[in-house]
Amino acid sequence: MKEKVSLAVINRLPRYYRYLGDLLDAGITKISSQELSEKMGTTASQVRQDLNCFGGFGQQGYGYNVELLYKEIASILGLDRKYTAILIGVGKLGNAILNRITFEKRGFKLIALFDNNPEIIGQEVRGLKVLDVNTIDDFCRIHKPDVAFLTLPREAVPGMAIRLEKLGIKGFWNFSSGYVKLENKEIPVENVHLGDSLMTLCYRVNELEKKLQNQNKI
Amino acid sequence: MKEKVSLAVINRLPRYYRYLGDLLDAGITKISSQELSEKMGTTASQVRQDLNCFGGFGQQGYGYNVELLYKEIASILGLDRKYTAILIGVGKLGNAILNRITFEKRGFKLIALFDNNPEIIGQEVRGLKVLDVNTIDDFCRIHKPDVAFLTLPREAVPGMAIRLEKLGIKGFWNFSSGYVKLENKEIPVENVHLGDSLMTLCYRVNELEKKLQNQNKI
Repeated sequence: MKEKVSLAVINRLPRYYRYLGDLLDAGITKISSQELSEKMGTTASQVRQDLNCFGGFGQQGYGYNVELLYKEIASILGLDRKYTAILIGVGKLGNAILNRITFEKRGFKLIALFDNNPEIIGQEVRGLKVLDVNTIDDFCRIHKPDVAFLTLPREAVPGMAIRLEKLGIKGFWNFSSGYVKLENKEIPVENVHLGDSLMTLCYRVNELEKKLQNQNKI
Repeated sequence: MKEKVSLAVINRLPRYYRYLGDLLDAGITKISSQELSEKMGTTASQVRQDLNCFGGFGQQGYGYNVELLYKEIASILGLDRKYTAILIGVGKLGNAILNRITFEKRGFKLIALFDNNPEIIGQEVRGLKVLDVNTIDDFCRIHKPDVAFLTLPREAVPGMAIRLEKLGIKGFWNFSSGYVKLENKEIPVENVHLGDSLMTLCYRVNELEKKLQNQNKI
């Protein structure tokens, strides 16, 4: 593997992984870079370039072995390491995330949930009892979770992030629209900006509208 | 504007837009492609190339006018058109989305909410009464909403998508992990794959871990 892989390539790997998983489910064992690129909305040369960053699994004129590539990407992404995670904020968003995501398949083992609402503390969600956020320092010192999922109100996020950084958290999944600022710039923060995909949708609807209007004129 | 702008560029525009909005809030009026690229995690030449697709707002040796660029991107994205939207599925995820997103700033006006749960129908959320999903056909024929936000259980998504396509919906924001298959392939479907960003986080935590282990060895 090359020393430095660009962030753009890394960001595409989950999509490759997800798509290869679909292929496996459909019983497809081989795929060309051309076919893969069509599904990914990119070019065949982009696909070859991306996968070459990690050592090139393809064989000229044969294509990619789907299962092998799937496993390799899982390994590159570190999905087999099972980092431990805590989630803070078991409100509407937290609950929605807990309901929807299979963390284990995405590289993480969820070990605790925290909230500050007395009505939520003590509830059981996904087999875990919601703990009082006031106990989070002790929890982290004892259990040393790797990452934190931040699904709390945006105004609470900056303070909580700093607190968790001091407690040794080494990765954040942030749903707040605010900016998570840490002392150590090397600690990864993945921000989920739902509004971005909404704006992309707006653009695409707008393009379709323009096209239809032009067709009507003719 | 060039005829065909690549999807990759389009996908970066919301990030430019969001970042330029932050700059405006901070009172910054000018930015170089170099500075912009650093914030975007890309290269200065990439930034220049991206923005050139739409006519090139920058001036050599001066940089970009933040406010002008911000407004232009809003216009390119169609955020000023205010397409009408309906949301189907006012469960945990639907509520979380309704709580978190300012649709108006992202190009959409939300005009109705639907659910099939008698306990949810009639509730008021964000100033809108939740309607019975059985009335959705009539609603669409009368009000002709432009797009639909699908926050219903994944198994309900394919059927609902087809139904809404027949009712004239011309864009989908889909939170289901399933695939939205429409008759008309031109209708845009924006899928939110939360698991993708979680896998990216996993990769980055893994990279940091490896780096720290190597440092400890020395």
